Amino acid sequence: MIIVGEKINTSRKSVEEAVVKRDAAFINKVAREQAEAGAHYIDVNAGTFLEQEADCLCWLVETVQSEVDLPLCLDSPNPKALSEAIKHHKGEPMINSISLEEDRFQSLIPVITSQPCHVVALCMAQTSMPTTVEERVQVGSELIKKLAAEGIPLEKIYVDTLVQPVSVDTGMGIATLGAISRIMNDFPGVNTICGLSNISFGLPERRLINRNFLALCMSYGLSAAILDPTDKQLMATLLAVEMLLGRDEYCENFIDAYQNGRIV
Amino acid sequence: MIIVGEKINTSRKSVEEAVVKRDAAFINKVAREQAEAGAHYIDVNAGTFLEQEADCLCWLVETVQSEVDLPLCLDSPNPKALSEAIKHHKGEPMINSISLEEDRFQSLIPVITSQPCHVVALCMAQTSMPTTVEERVQVGSELIKKLAAEGIPLEKIYVDTLVQPVSVDTGMGIATLGAISRIMNDFPGVNTICGLSNISFGLPERRLINRNFLALCMSYGLSAAILDPTDKQLMATLLAVEMLLGRDEYCENFIDAYQNGRIV
Repeated sequence: MIIVGEKINTSRKSVEEAVVKRDAAFINKVAREQAEAGAHYIDVNAGTFLEQEADCLCWLVETVQSEVDLPLCLDSPNPKALSEAIKHHKGEPMINSISLEEDRFQSLIPVITSQPCHVVALCMAQTSMPTTVEERVQVGSELIKKLAAEGIPLEKIYVDTLVQPVSVDTGMGIATLGAISRIMNDFPGVNTICGLSNISFGLPERRLINRNFLALCMSYGLSAAILDPTDKQLMATLLAVEMLLGRDEYCENFIDAYQNGRIV
Repeated sequence: MIIVGEKINTSRKSVEEAVVKRDAAFINKVAREQAEAGAHYIDVNAGTFLEQEADCLCWLVETVQSEVDLPLCLDSPNPKALSEAIKHHKGEPMINSISLEEDRFQSLIPVITSQPCHVVALCMAQTSMPTTVEERVQVGSELIKKLAAEGIPLEKIYVDTLVQPVSVDTGMGIATLGAISRIMNDFPGVNTICGLSNISFGLPERRLINRNFLALCMSYGLSAAILDPTDKQLMATLLAVEMLLGRDEYCENFIDAYQNGRIV
């Protein structure tokens, strides 16, 4: 399971303030905690800065990679911000995200083909938000084919099947789960990824719902997730599910995490 | 999701003592708590009493049904104890369990065909414990066909796909999950059931592992479980997963449970 640490996002007040003040110590702490908790990528998002997004994103890339030896997930729909940030990045970044919306697709293709990278492909088309499994699979499949035609290997494509709240429509959980299963089945080698928290919008006990949704997504084949790796209960779910699905030889990771106080 | 409350089992010291003393107040309390927590059946097991099993089981049936208006799950491989207990039972009991072991099968068929009842069919054959998905499906399928030939409708058959510890073999989670999925798919209308706790034998944080295994089993199609309904974290998982799988209209059960303090 590939874990993208989601915490360095300027939609969070404390992160936005740290970026304004160029408070590298704060950002480094958030980066380091996520790395120590098991993140494979650190997401950086400076979307709230609008005109200054590119500058802020570049600063975040430099700052985070001065602290942790991990690739970053450059999180923006803005080709200018991404192409600037990519120049500051060491190693192969993950770009989050391209979609099937015509403008976004065309403007991001030059960025993601400018150097080797991993790409999040969001199941969003020109016309409307997909609601059914079928719509998600259709958009996801088209994105995979178009990215493959641009020379991106399947293993570097992460289809984000889009998570919508069950409080709005109780079929939304199954819509995401079914799409994950179909895409993983139809395109062997491709990855699927999602953020979790949208699923529980409008409901109480959101962290409980989110971590159970993670368990379900994993059982349907999800191979990557954007989440808070410092949430110990969430990570305990992830480790338990990996073990229960037979992906933890000798239960070693689970037992090791328990012995190191990472299971609560 | 059909919930069988597992707590009235004389392998638990306090229950055994209550049965010895014929302490109806204690048994009734355990029965009532499980009913209030959402059990659809109350399991009664007096297996530790050996020669006195039949007497003890009859007393448990009378006692529990004097307190709660629910059918019971008569839990014994002993045809004498079951045929006695069934006479004291009001309504349609669940018999737990028949298997493909020749003696057990032959001796229990007269009991389960003596009156309408639900039947747990354990995926255990004469020769050895099944380890793979294939072996479980083979034994389960043969049991279903044999029970159907005896006139038991599919809807009253609960295939127990057998849970073995992941600490012994990391493939054991997948073996159970795969069998659930196959059996639910091959025999529409049939039920699958399992106890959870065996999965975590030999590991730390067993309750965490058990509740995540419940989530996975449900996502593979499990329709009934033998569990402790007074374990609030376990029931919170069950309610969240039912909601996430689109089986809780308007998220009503989940929100109701939250408002009544049943989600922790």
